Amino acid sequence: MRKHFLRCITCKKEFDPKPGLYYCEDCGKIMGTLEVIYDYDSIKEESIVKEKKFDKKASMYQFDFLLPAESKGKFDEYVGGTPLYSFDLLGIKNVLVKYDGSNPSSSYKDRASSIAINRALDEGNDTMFCASTGNAASSLAMLNAHTEMKTYIFVPASIPDGKRAQLEISGAEVMAVEGTYDEVYDLSLELGLKKGWYCRHAAINPYLLEGKKTGAFEIIIQSDFTVPDYVLVGVGDGTVISSLYKGFWEFKEIGLTDKIPRIIGVQAEGIPAIKEVFDKGKPYIPLTIEGKTIADSISVGKPRDVIKACNYVEASNGYFITLTDEEILDAIIELGKITGIFAEPAGVVPYGGLKKLIYEDKITQSDTVCLVITGSGLKDVNAVKDTINKTSLSFEEVVKRFEE
Amino acid sequence: MRKHFLRCITCKKEFDPKPGLYYCEDCGKIMGTLEVIYDYDSIKEESIVKEKKFDKKASMYQFDFLLPAESKGKFDEYVGGTPLYSFDLLGIKNVLVKYDGSNPSSSYKDRASSIAINRALDEGNDTMFCASTGNAASSLAMLNAHTEMKTYIFVPASIPDGKRAQLEISGAEVMAVEGTYDEVYDLSLELGLKKGWYCRHAAINPYLLEGKKTGAFEIIIQSDFTVPDYVLVGVGDGTVISSLYKGFWEFKEIGLTDKIPRIIGVQAEGIPAIKEVFDKGKPYIPLTIEGKTIADSISVGKPRDVIKACNYVEASNGYFITLTDEEILDAIIELGKITGIFAEPAGVVPYGGLKKLIYEDKITQSDTVCLVITGSGLKDVNAVKDTINKTSLSFEEVVKRFEE
Repeated sequence: MRKHFLRCITCKKEFDPKPGLYYCEDCGKIMGTLEVIYDYDSIKEESIVKEKKFDKKASMYQFDFLLPAESKGKFDEYVGGTPLYSFDLLGIKNVLVKYDGSNPSSSYKDRASSIAINRALDEGNDTMFCASTGNAASSLAMLNAHTEMKTYIFVPASIPDGKRAQLEISGAEVMAVEGTYDEVYDLSLELGLKKGWYCRHAAINPYLLEGKKTGAFEIIIQSDFTVPDYVLVGVGDGTVISSLYKGFWEFKEIGLTDKIPRIIGVQAEGIPAIKEVFDKGKPYIPLTIEGKTIADSISVGKPRDVIKACNYVEASNGYFITLTDEEILDAIIELGKITGIFAEPAGVVPYGGLKKLIYEDKITQSDTVCLVITGSGLKDVNAVKDTINKTSLSFEEVVKRFEE
Repeated sequence: MRKHFLRCITCKKEFDPKPGLYYCEDCGKIMGTLEVIYDYDSIKEESIVKEKKFDKKASMYQFDFLLPAESKGKFDEYVGGTPLYSFDLLGIKNVLVKYDGSNPSSSYKDRASSIAINRALDEGNDTMFCASTGNAASSLAMLNAHTEMKTYIFVPASIPDGKRAQLEISGAEVMAVEGTYDEVYDLSLELGLKKGWYCRHAAINPYLLEGKKTGAFEIIIQSDFTVPDYVLVGVGDGTVISSLYKGFWEFKEIGLTDKIPRIIGVQAEGIPAIKEVFDKGKPYIPLTIEGKTIADSISVGKPRDVIKACNYVEASNGYFITLTDEEILDAIIELGKITGIFAEPAGVVPYGGLKKLIYEDKITQSDTVCLVITGSGLKDVNAVKDTINKTSLSFEEVVKRFEE
């Protein structure tokens, strides 16, 4: 396991890692989230870095020189290494599309679950727990099904059918709780920490972001060590967007690139919690807002990784924007028609965001852009049920349709 | 493009390839399906074969020395190279699980669609058509969305929501016809051939099987050139099972292996059309039966690749078995609990089949086995909606649940 220490995002106090240490006690659960920091000067000198010995299709564990786990799981070899497509979109020639729906459980969250499972095994824990809007839970449940560890899952009862089915099929103990994600999160955290279970909450357990950052590493190696001008991604709790920044930052830190992209967070207009904090400016003060969106994965009113997300996006010279639910649904249909890719609502928001920024002349045809699509549309088919055509035809109608 | 000729599966007459030649006119559309035959003696001597220069995660196009297409599509690099997992299942230590749900459209069918699109481009066609129980159609629609070609899709109106959504999202022209798959197939074939569109019907266009056979190649290279004793797979039209045989046969033919596994076809008890033909023995006489099953992808009463499937399974010393819908649903839940893998109904039948054959002592603990899981369970979440738990809990109930 790669040597590292933990550092509070707010007061910068440093900690030696130990089981159960998830946040700086001085600064608290949200202000005191921790960063995992490695010895970059020494990593820079290692042969894998100097020789750039990477594989565009290998799993995220090809980056284990920057990963903090020892154990290896059955699915690890197939987590990450996801496609980076290039499409002519909205007048920009080579828009990169990082599609993480091809991970084992069909979402970006497998990168974090895989690390979490390996860390829990490293620590000898026998139980894991997770509160989730759906994808993190179904990811943990799937990847953990074959291990000896028990899995407790806490989700809002309203999660989409596809994600609920994944959970139940995997044999996890599912608590589908009548409440919002934010309420379910607090409940599970209180229970789980009291019980001493391993916490798979990406926003509070700093190791989870470490798995997620590999998406940025892959964007870099899959585009031959060039870095796009802009990276757009959906934002709920704020961990995925933070992880992308950290990934780009670390590869620059070890000399593999010379630039960090401007990172644009896309939120739902109905519940733009991190955007509100960011736009109010420094010092960033966490808040809780009420609201909702069809994009369940980013339906978060009390974001837990808000401090990292704001600090990192600011450091990248990025910002946050929002989309209405209507714009999100349109984006699903439009991206599908052009590329064939079927994204879930929270996964498609980078496309909708790009469209908006081009319309506003904030991104132009000469910019290079990467969209991070975090989950498959098959996870939430109901989201598009009122948008897509569902009519059927008789034989006679079909024949008539093609008569010349 | 690899040089090849076509050969009738029944009368063995040989043909030079030409656009629109899909079957032996002497033997007809079902008896006269064609095999694609290469010059194996010469391929055997090529350096890639002699040096076994393969990559466990590369796309199916690493096998282009045995593939009949020239053009290259945007998704090709990510079709195939799917996971081969190993699990301790049903008392057998290393059951191999080939999981094709991680293809771009989440099913095995991408292997065939990719070749079909490239062949259509090679031939300069501007329109493709496909009749399908769902997966072949959603695969073609997705992979073809970004090309200049038009896509006509013909499906029974009853296809699962996930597959319908994939079709509509991709912008294909979808004819959801009020009829069975078998009726829709005949209607579309008549229309499509009359119009001169490129035919993506795997059972009649011999090139499609060529894409599908790469699943067998991958099983071989991913298990370091060992060949399992048994391969189990679901059977509808009969093309996937035929393709597996051909893949194992070709790798033996070019000297990469010395064995072909016994290939076991698993059908639904409600509509076991190929099993009936096979069990009646030679000469194999195609038939049409009525029936139904929850496993939509294998709900085929008039199988079009029945002659190849029977000949090839016989040549492998294999056979066909059936499962009830109840056994299929149980298999989804059981495979999920043990492995975390969520398979669609037709995709999970190899697991149910293995269970049955172990119970009947036809497969024992010393046998090596590979299960081919052809599609993701997210494609048909409704199939399990009555089987999985859907209850929700109040906060108080959750707290009480964990009180010591």
